[in-house]
Formats: sequence, structure tokens, C-alpha cells
Amino acid sequence: MSYRARFENQIAVMKQDGRYRTFIELERIAGEFPAAIWKRKDGEARRVVVWCSNDYLGIGQHPDVLAAMHEALDNHGAGAGGTRNISGTQSQHVRLEAEIADMHEKESALIFTSGWISNLAALSALGKLLPDAVILSDAGNHNSMIEGIKRAGIEKRIWRHNDLAHLEELLLALPPEQPKLIAFESVYSMDGDIAPIADICDLADRFGAMTYLDEVHAVGLYGPQGAGVAEREGVANRLTFIEGTLGKAFGVMGGYVAGPTVMIDVIRSLADSFIFTTSLCPHLAAGALAAIQHLRNDPALREKQQRHVKMLKDMLKDAGLPVLDGPSHIIPLMVGDAHACRAASDRLLEQHGIYVQPINYPTVAHGKERLRITPTPFHTEEHMRQLVDALSAIARESLWPSLRVEAVA
Amino acid sequence: MSYRARFENQIAVMKQDGRYRTFIELERIAGEFPAAIWKRKDGEARRVVVWCSNDYLGIGQHPDVLAAMHEALDNHGAGAGGTRNISGTQSQHVRLEAEIADMHEKESALIFTSGWISNLAALSALGKLLPDAVILSDAGNHNSMIEGIKRAGIEKRIWRHNDLAHLEELLLALPPEQPKLIAFESVYSMDGDIAPIADICDLADRFGAMTYLDEVHAVGLYGPQGAGVAEREGVANRLTFIEGTLGKAFGVMGGYVAGPTVMIDVIRSLADSFIFTTSLCPHLAAGALAAIQHLRNDPALREKQQRHVKMLKDMLKDAGLPVLDGPSHIIPLMVGDAHACRAASDRLLEQHGIYVQPINYPTVAHGKERLRITPTPFHTEEHMRQLVDALSAIARESLWPSLRVEAVA
Repeated sequence: MSYRARFENQIAVMKQDGRYRTFIELERIAGEFPAAIWKRKDGEARRVVVWCSNDYLGIGQHPDVLAAMHEALDNHGAGAGGTRNISGTQSQHVRLEAEIADMHEKESALIFTSGWISNLAALSALGKLLPDAVILSDAGNHNSMIEGIKRAGIEKRIWRHNDLAHLEELLLALPPEQPKLIAFESVYSMDGDIAPIADICDLADRFGAMTYLDEVHAVGLYGPQGAGVAEREGVANRLTFIEGTLGKAFGVMGGYVAGPTVMIDVIRSLADSFIFTTSLCPHLAAGALAAIQHLRNDPALREKQQRHVKMLKDMLKDAGLPVLDGPSHIIPLMVGDAHACRAASDRLLEQHGIYVQPINYPTVAHGKERLRITPTPFHTEEHMRQLVDALSAIARESLWPSLRVEAVA
Repeated sequence: MSYRARFENQIAVMKQDGRYRTFIELERIAGEFPAAIWKRKDGEARRVVVWCSNDYLGIGQHPDVLAAMHEALDNHGAGAGGTRNISGTQSQHVRLEAEIADMHEKESALIFTSGWISNLAALSALGKLLPDAVILSDAGNHNSMIEGIKRAGIEKRIWRHNDLAHLEELLLALPPEQPKLIAFESVYSMDGDIAPIADICDLADRFGAMTYLDEVHAVGLYGPQGAGVAEREGVANRLTFIEGTLGKAFGVMGGYVAGPTVMIDVIRSLADSFIFTTSLCPHLAAGALAAIQHLRNDPALREKQQRHVKMLKDMLKDAGLPVLDGPSHIIPLMVGDAHACRAASDRLLEQHGIYVQPINYPTVAHGKERLRITPTPFHTEEHMRQLVDALSAIARESLWPSLRVEAVA
């Protein structure tokens, strides 16, 4: 079979399984978030309401953030011009790292070009330094943590998702003197459930383990200063590392890890994905700094978001729609089939001007396909009513597997 | 030993070996490139001339690039708000990918948040799809290609750097029907030497291999439209994939792979480092597009850069300094010892206001430590004279191993 034929075959298989992905082309409209222009393949442009953005607070259009970016662009130009080590460390990086460390009650922080790379770099560098260690990883951890742990190349144990008893069992079975790192997330991105962070810290203390907490879906959103769930629960200083993103509630792009200075220094020195990468553009660091400072000082956006989350969740439940109820701002609407999920999304977009991306394999397991809805402070009650009405109409006419199960129960 | 002690020990070892890295904090000055403000640890700020930036053409301060970025920021806000699949595909990404594909004479292109990730994603996805294939990799390939090839998890063969006879020997030893991918770079970043691209394409044709060419240190700089060395030599259309960066001569950040549509579609669909990453900020894509369009239409900047490269190389050689002579814009000045390399760099910065980062292990092999100098169109003859005078003074007083060898020869 020719090369091309093998690739064509792969694409055909994905299409058949309903997991071939078509990217929806948008133009976000600053100042009118969550509205955007949808550029259809046929050239037509239509105005739509986006319900699946991870710019959770719409901070990416905030005047303070944009002003900081414009100013840095004018003063310093576009790119950093090099890796952090070769002319690519700018004052904006240094200031942002200091702010992040302070926010997470850590000694130091290090920024990366994405959250994915943060996890890959930090976890693999820790493995390189501690070849005799074992990483205990929550079964629900994000792909980037799994890849970082793989690259660490050291022993690992997977504990059942958010199952403290299982984690304890695994810790008990390990030699007391073996170095240990417990890696987990606060808010899990697809189900929206939250880890028992304090209890995990208790176990870490008891067994002498380090902890690594991924807060990418929580930073900006929880805690008095928006530092995440660990801050809300008053346990931030008990964690060895906190990893986060600049690309979701902080509205820009990039990621980071905060922790003890000497450990961050080792990650900085050993992680090839960090060493060999042009650093984040200085104006992006300036924008992220402005977003963090705004959200640390003013809880209004996240409080409004939380009210909207509750309101929409109640409306969806009242309409009998299959909401996966949880303690976070993420509202999964379970469909349970890849084709039905895509069809619902297509119809929302085509007929209702509402954009919610279908979430299919490999982002979620087969059978767990869903529409993942993320209300922001800028979604109005009218937006919510339109969404619930449209979803009710679609759910009545389609037979989602999730609804069939509910009907039986 | 406690966790902290183990990390402290690692740092101490690196310091002893002369490979502990201290980042130089800068503030680039838009409009005055290559000048920058050096922020010393003691709080003092001094104006310096940067001689080691990969913003090879200073395009990161070009008015067209900055205007495109300002406009996109104003119209669309800061971040993309999601992965490419989940609300993060913006028109700026689509337009940039079309421009890149056209520039490299390919059907399609896909952008990533860094060049490092481009190589990791593309090479590992190709391996996933072709588990029976073998990758033939030049021994000098960049860390990101090596990591991508590792993650591909398939057979590999390393051919001696730029050694066609060895590549042919390896190809002859493989089963004719086995799928093959030859992976190499055009300009190698640390020595500045260039691959025999056409000859490698000949071998690929003869043995039915695909080719993957990394042009990150060449795009913007070579060829009538600045599409790279492959364009200059008229062989761009013979390569299966061309990989490049938006973070060096194009002055922003990010990376890309261009190739046949069906193959790019598979990379897009299978590469987890792509799937699970917030997409590049739309205004960065807009800035990169402006930079590419400018450099495709106007060769003035790269012609001026080439003249400056020749001028500086001649001046350094005339001064008896140990230049590693090569065919590209990269001028390595060989020192041959980590401590001497760092000392030279420190003295240039402290006493002469000149910033050239020492390049030590792991970026280059032990014994190959160097100062890597990158002249741009904006370095003046006076800048060059100051650099050569400063280097001559330092080289006379220090005994660089490279000079000792030359003295014997």
C-alpha cells in the first residue's frame, strides 16, 4: 500500500467511528464575548454564541489585559528572540514568574509555552533527577501528565480516580524509604469533579511523599485570590508543586509550574522541552500578569461566573437534560454516542447559532461522549434560555443513549 | 537524603561542571534592535548590544508585524480560548496555514505553539500511523526531532551527520518494502553547516522513502521568497514534509509542519501534544502572517543580513579568532571549554556592553563550547568593530583551548 493510501485509510476509519474532527473556524469579537463570527466552509459568515470556551472569565478581552499587551508590543516588539538561556529572558517573564510564585504561596515559578509542556517538562525532569522514585498518578490525569510521567521513565502506580483508600493502599505497599511523588488535578476537565486535596496532602505527609497538583481548570476561578482550589481550601502551602495555565481563565496562552526554588531550578536546568524552546513572547507574559493581578484583586468576574453556572445547571436539570452534576464550573451534558453528539452539536450550530463542540474519543472514553458547557460571566439569561430551549428540542427528537438509560432508571 | 538535599546536590554538580545556566534578564527595545536593556541582579540597568538573538532579521520590531498584531488584539482579544478542536480555531490560524503551505509548495500546513512541539507531534504521529516503518535520522538532528523519533516508538537508524554514503549504506541494508522516513535539517543551528538536500532527495526517490526537513534556522533567510534552503536549491517540492518556526526569522513564536493534506490531517488527528494544547493566540498568527508576507515579497532584510554575515566573518578571521567557517548566517566562535566560554561571555557583557550567550553542554558536546554569533541587518559596522576588538582583547588574555590547538597546528 502506498504511503498516501495508508494515511487515507486512517482518515476513513476515523470518519467511520465518528471521531474525525472538523475544526469550526471562528473570529472572536473583542468586547462582545461570548459572541463570535462563524466562518462556514461555504464562505458564509454567521454570528454565533460560543458555549465551550476555556477563556472561562472572558478576561482575554479585558481592557487591562489588552492595554498591557499593546504597551509591551510597542516597547519591546513581538517575539522574545531566543530560548530563555539564549537572549530570550525578558523582564516580563521574570515579573510574571514572581507573581505566580506569590499567588501559589511558593518560592519560585517557571513559565512554559503551554500547560501541556509544563506537565511534560516538570514531571519528566523530576523523574530524571530521582531515578529511584515512584510517581503515584490519579487514573483521571490529563494526557500531558501521563506523557510527562511516561517520559520520567521511572516506576509508577495508578490510583483509581479520586479514590483515597486506593491511594493509601498503594502507598502502604511501597518501601517507606523510596522517594514518592503524588500527581493529581484539582478540577478534572471533562467531568468537572474535584479532588480531595487536603486528604491527599495528609497521606503525602504520612508517607513522606511530594505532591504535584495540576490546577489548570481552577486557577483564576477558585479561592479568595483566584489561585485555585488549593487556595480556597487553605492548603496551597502544603503542596510541593502547583501547575497551572495562562491560557484558560487567565485568557492568554502558556503554562507554569510553581514550587521550591531548588526544585524549579532543576526543572529549568534539565527539561529539554524547556531548554530548547523559544520563550513566550514578552507581551504575552505582560498580558498574563495583568490578568492575574486583576483576578487576584477583584473576585467579581468569578463570582458572577459561579452564579451563572448555578443558574444554567438548574435550568438544564429542570428541562430534564442529562447533566452530570458536579461541584465545578464545568457542565457536562452526557450524550453517550459519538455520532449523536456530533449531530447535536451540528444542529445547535446550524439551526440555533449556538456553538458547543462535541467531545468525543480520545478526549473522553468511548460511550462517554458529551457536550461540555462552560458558562462565563458574559453569558446572559437570554443566552441560557436559548441554549436550554435548543437542547430540549434536540434531545426530544434524538434518542441520546444517556436519555434512554435515564428513561429505564 | 532529603528531597531538597538531592536537588541541591544536582545544582552543585552543574555549577562545578560550568554548565549551570544563569539567565540574562533583558528588555528589548522596539525600534532600536539589536540594542536592549540588561537588568543586572543588583538592580542596575545597562544598555547592551545583543549578538545572539534568533530574531535573525529583527522582524519582530517591524511596523507591519506590530500593526497586524495590534489590530488582531483589538478586534479579537488576547487568547484563542481553547484547543483547535474546542473553539480555538480562528481565521488567523487558517489564513496562516494556507500561507505557509503555499510558501513551501505543499498542499497543507499545521501550526503548533512551538517548533519543539512541531517536531515532537509530527514525528511521533507518523510513527503511530506507520508502526512498521523505520526513521533514518541525521546524527546532528535537534533535540526536538530526537524526542519526536523516540516517541514514535518505531525502528530508527542514525546516519553520520551529513554523510550521504552512510545514509545510502543504511538504506541498502533495509528491506526494500519497509516504509522509510529520512529526517534531517537544512541549517544545523550550532555549527551552521547545511545539508545536501537534493542528494538526500535523490536517495529518498531511489529507496522509496519519505523525507522530513527541519528548516527552522533557514526559513525567512534563504531562497527567493525566504522559504528556506530547499527553495533556494529548487527542491522544496521534492520533500514530503518541511517543518519550520514562527519564532526565529519570522520574529514571533510557534512552529509548523507543511506536507500532503492527508498526512497533515493524520498528524492533526493523532498528535496528543497538538490535540490537548490551547492554540496559538490569534494575534500571534496574524503577526507571523505579516512577517512571512513581508519576507516573501521583499528580500532586502535577508540580503543585508548576508552582507553583514560576510563582513563580520572576515573581520573575525582577520583578527585571528577561531571562527568555525560555514555556509550559513551562524558564526560559531570556538572556545572549547565551559568555564572559559562563560568567562568570555561575562567579560563581554560586564566590560564591553556586548551580550553573546556561552553555548555549553547539553546544547553542544563537551569540548565544543562556543560563542555563537548571529549578525542581523541591524548590526552596524561600528557594532562589528566593537565586537571584534573586545573579542581580540579577551582572546589574547585568556588561553582558549581552541586557540592553543591552532597555535600548535
